[in-house]
Order: sequence, then structure tokens, then C-alpha cells
Amino acid sequence: MARIAVVAGDGIGTEVVAEARKVIDAVLPGVTATEYDLGAARYHRTGEVLPDSVRDELAGHDAILLGAVGDPTVPPGVLERGLLLKLRFDFDQYVNLRPARLWPGTSSPLAHVKAGEIDFVVVREGTEGLYAGAGGTMHRDTPAEVATEESLNTRHGVERVIRDAFARAQRRERRKVTLVHKTNVLTHAGSLWSRAFDAVKAEFPDVETEYQHVDAAAMFMVTQPQRYDVVVTDNLFGDILTDIAAAVTGGIGLAASGSINPTRQFPSMFEPVHGSAPDIAGKGVADPVAAVLSASLLLDHLGHADEARRVFEAVATELASRTPGVPVRTAEVGDRLAAQAA
Amino acid sequence: MARIAVVAGDGIGTEVVAEARKVIDAVLPGVTATEYDLGAARYHRTGEVLPDSVRDELAGHDAILLGAVGDPTVPPGVLERGLLLKLRFDFDQYVNLRPARLWPGTSSPLAHVKAGEIDFVVVREGTEGLYAGAGGTMHRDTPAEVATEESLNTRHGVERVIRDAFARAQRRERRKVTLVHKTNVLTHAGSLWSRAFDAVKAEFPDVETEYQHVDAAAMFMVTQPQRYDVVVTDNLFGDILTDIAAAVTGGIGLAASGSINPTRQFPSMFEPVHGSAPDIAGKGVADPVAAVLSASLLLDHLGHADEARRVFEAVATELASRTPGVPVRTAEVGDRLAAQAA
Ligand SMILES: CC(C)[C@H](C(=O)O)[C@@H](O)C(=O)O
Ligand SMILES: CC(C)[C@H](C(=O)O)[C@@H](O)C(=O)O
Repeated sequence: MARIAVVAGDGIGTEVVAEARKVIDAVLPGVTATEYDLGAARYHRTGEVLPDSVRDELAGHDAILLGAVGDPTVPPGVLERGLLLKLRFDFDQYVNLRPARLWPGTSSPLAHVKAGEIDFVVVREGTEGLYAGAGGTMHRDTPAEVATEESLNTRHGVERVIRDAFARAQRRERRKVTLVHKTNVLTHAGSLWSRAFDAVKAEFPDVETEYQHVDAAAMFMVTQPQRYDVVVTDNLFGDILTDIAAAVTGGIGLAASGSINPTRQFPSMFEPVHGSAPDIAGKGVADPVAAVLSASLLLDHLGHADEARRVFEAVATELASRTPGVPVRTAEVGDRLAAQAA
Repeated sequence: MARIAVVAGDGIGTEVVAEARKVIDAVLPGVTATEYDLGAARYHRTGEVLPDSVRDELAGHDAILLGAVGDPTVPPGVLERGLLLKLRFDFDQYVNLRPARLWPGTSSPLAHVKAGEIDFVVVREGTEGLYAGAGGTMHRDTPAEVATEESLNTRHGVERVIRDAFARAQRRERRKVTLVHKTNVLTHAGSLWSRAFDAVKAEFPDVETEYQHVDAAAMFMVTQPQRYDVVVTDNLFGDILTDIAAAVTGGIGLAASGSINPTRQFPSMFEPVHGSAPDIAGKGVADPVAAVLSASLLLDHLGHADEARRVFEAVATELASRTPGVPVRTAEVGDRLAAQAA
């Protein structure tokens, strides 16, 4: 039976993860879940971000379910570099998967788009690019200061994530992959991405392809989000584009993500895209749907496709039955989803 | 009298620039305009992108009016690096200015936003960051290939563009500057931008400030574009955000830009954000409004504030009087704008 590590984290993270666990227990009774106390609260209490021993324990699990970590008083980068990115890198989670869907029952800020019309997935590279942490500062706090950030891209890293995107597209109805980069300015990395894309494309003759510069893609995600099926892109572009995708599909409140190691050599991590939302934490009003959808991705990754689908469909039912403008109660949503999916 | 260099370029570039010149001539008779043949057409004909002699001649002008350069058959990077970015860098055009406005008479794809509600300007750094061209490739076309791109940021370059943004905010009604970066991941460059921002902020105590990560800003530009007044950010983030800004204000068809050297040591360059649009080129149906608005920015930069305002108001009148869905005729629009602004 699957062994899951649970990092509920801070703020609403703990609230939404509790509901995601209810739903997992309902569809897959017997899953072992071990809780790990990580995040801003622990950092403030102990100064620790991710002790090696905890990292090693996490490595022994089949998957990690994460709520949200952080609060405004932790200096920028500490939890991001020390925890989230460290896990993505240490566990080689090279497929950062972010589905974007305009669910029936919800509405988009876009006037011209109807529920059901947006349904794509962004396959964001998760272990390279500008996230590598390669950079430095010289002459700090002087007029001569220089700060650098380096985007590192390997054929190995680029090709494997592109291949994953094509494989996903092949399992979808429209079978289309859009590569997003900025080949006209980032000519070195852009060329590597383009050549790797062309090479992998030859292995998937039944998949349609297109290329867009990141600026154009950012625009089209607003003006024509319907056009996308699978989007593959680098770490930073993926970070930005998936937030646009969340915005046009009703906000990050519903957006799920998986940081996936498709080889399963290390655990993959599943988390809602939203943060710890200190402003609404502790009130029981956070929407757990993004966490529950992340649990559905987790189940699917672990080979429980049927359970994953039941959770997904429970969410569809839940969202379709909501009255716009009526606030949700976190625990009630979790109860309904668990009952529906069971 | 002002001496302007005109680079009409390719495709609809030549068509919209002709109208922008009509309008400039109408408000400021006696301007000398010298045409330079640069772009994809010249590249195909002669292999030349920007001969040094032409660059030196351009340097002798007060400003450059550019239409659009490029076509799909030129390899990525050739005209971008060799012409557009070369001019931005050689002429130290460190303020890349991109106003975003939802004009009365036009409509946004956003259901919740009404004309007049979006009115901000993005001050994008234009000479540094990932656009520096610092990168390389090793082991090309082997499984061991590595490609890098480096973002270079100097205190000098960052501080001056931030100061420009604050100065602009101070002249606007709302007096607010939003810094956009990714300080939680790009910790070196992010720290430099943050510290420079804080230092400059102290010089402008009457300007309100906020900070957003680029992913959050990309989202808020869709969900709450009304919140922005002046946005200052780095070269690549600015590239992406200004396309979102264009999308939510009705598309790049109306978006103007200036690559400005505020010291006037070298000429600044003004151009519509749209490209050469080969699909509609030669038909006389391209909307010249973005080019005409770029001319308005040009006039303002050269100290002709009254003329700039008249052009701006002519555009407002034109857009307010359009019937949605009725196609425009390039030359007719130019004639109307010239008559109105004269
Ligand atoms: C918190 C941050 C490090 C992270 C990222 O930039 O990847 C977040 O924005 C995300 O998208 O998961
Ligand atoms: C054509 C390209 C080099 C350019 C850029 O990336 O700056 C364009 O996208 C722009 O925004 O002016």
C-alpha cells in the first residue's frame, strides 16, 4: 500500500491538506500517511528549513502531498530555495505538471470563453534553467555592483521533459504540443530547446506541434487560451505562464500541480498552486479543491488511475453545483468530495 | 527643427509608418525625416542587417521612428540581435516604455473591466538582464550538450531605470510604482533590484510602492489590471508583462512603445509593439494607431508636449468613434488622425 509523506505547511496549507487526505482515505483506504512539520512555522521555531534526516525520510515515501509553505516574515528565498526547490532538485522532479481547465460551474474573467473550452496542461521543466541557483554578486552595495543569474540547460534535461510532454499529448484527444521559449533573444538555450523539440517530434509523428515566443504565448493565453493542448516550456517561463493559465481559468484557488519524477526513482510531490494565504488562514473558508485535485494527480502518478478519476469527477460535480458568490466552508467541501468520490 | 530617422521595415511596418509620418508632419511641419532601408527585405537582398555606417548615421538623428522588421524566413535572432537589440544597446536606450490603456471605444477581453479603467505604463529595463547576449553552448548536438544564458544586472543600470519609473509616477495622478521581479528564486539579481528600489524610493517619499513576484504580476494583470500605475521590471519580465498588458487592453494592434535614452546622448526609438504581420501586409487594412501613438511618444520625448498631446487626443477621438467589428483602412485612419491633430 502506498506510503505518503504529508507536508501540510503553513496557513491554509494545513486546512486544505486535511481535506485532501479525507478524499485520499475515502478512495484508497489503507494508505499510510506520515506528517512532516516543515515550513515557516518550523523555521521560526527552530531555524531549520529541511534537515538532511527529514529529506532522507521523505525520500523513502512513494509521494509527497504538500499544502503551502511560507509567510511574509520569512526572507525571500529561504523556504523556496531551502525546501521547495531543494526537493524538486534533489528528487529530480523534472516534470512540473500544471493542468489548466475552465470547469463547468466556474467562470473565467475572459468574456469570450465559456466553461469547458479551456483544457490544457503545462509541462514545465522543473530542475534546470534559471532555477539552478547559478548566480552571484560582486561589489555588493557599491555603485559598481553586478548581480548575475544563469540559466543552465542540458540536452539531457530538456529532451526528457519534451518527451514527457509528447507522451502526454499522445494520450489526449487533440494531440498537440506547443513549445514556448524565446529563441529570438535567448539564442543559445533557445536553439537547444528547438533542436531537442525537433528530434523528439520525429518520434511522435501523430502529434501536431507549434512554437511560440514566450511573450506571444503570454498574450495568446489571454486572447485564445482554447488553442492550447499541451504546452512545454522551461522552468521560469512555465512559472509565469501557469499563473496566467490559472488566472484565465478562475484563479489559483483551483489550480493543482505535480512536481513529478516520472521514473519514480524518487518521490514526486503534489501541491496546490496557491500559497499559505495568511489573510484567510484559520477561518475554515479556504477552498480545498486545488489540494484535492493535487491529490488526484498524486493518485494517478502512483498508478491508481480509477481512484484519480473518481476524485476528479467528484470535483467536477462539486464545482458544477456551486452557486457563484457563495463562500465555501473548507471541511464541508472535503466531506462532500470524499463522499462523492468514495 | 527635429531630425528623425525613419526605419519603416517590413510588411505592415511600411504602411503604418507612412501614416505616423502624416500625423507628425501635420502637427510639426518642417521635421526632416530620412528613410533607412533596414529589415528582412534588405537582409534577403544584401545579407546586411545593420552596417556600421548606417548605425553611425542613425546616431546623428534626434529620434528614430520604426515600423516593424522581420518575416518568418529570417532565422531567429538575426534581426533581433543584429538590429533591434543592437540599437537599444548601442544607443543605451535603457527605458523601454510601454503604456497600457483601455481606450474608450475599445473593449478588453476581460469581462470585468470597463474602458478607461486600465491606465498604466510599464517601464521595462532595456539594456541589461538576459538580453545582454551572454551565453554559450558546449558539446553541441551531443547528448552532453549544455546551453547557458546569463542575466547581467548592474547597480548602475538597475538604479537609473528605477529612478526613471519613480519620476514618471510622480508626474501621474496615482503616484504608485510596482516593482516586479522574482526575488524568491533569482536571489542575486532580485536582491540587487530590491535594494536599488528601496534606495530610490527614499528619494520619492510621495510615491506609493509595492512589490510583486513576476508570476503573481502576470496573474494580477489579468485579474486586476486596474491596480497598476507604473510598473518597473527587468528586460525579460517586461517583455512578457507588456504583452499581457497589450492583450488585456485589446491587443497589440494598439500598443505603442519607446526605447528611450532619457539623457538624449543617443537617439531614442519609437515603434508599435506589433510585428510586420505578413498575412495582412499590402492590403491597406493595418491599423496605424499603434504607430501613431508611438509618434506621440516620440514628440513628447523631443520636448513637443503639446503636439504629443494633440496626437494622443486625436487617437482618443478616432477610437471612440469606431464601430466595433468594422475593419479599418490604414490611409483613411491616418488622414483622419492628421486632420484631427493638426
Ligand atoms: C514559490 C516558488 C519557488 C515557486 C516557483 O517559482 O516555482 C512557485 O511560484 C511555483 O510556481 O511553484
Ligand atoms: C523582437 C524582440 C527582440 C523584442 C523583445 O523581446 O524585446 C520584442 O518582443 C519586443 O518586445 O520589443
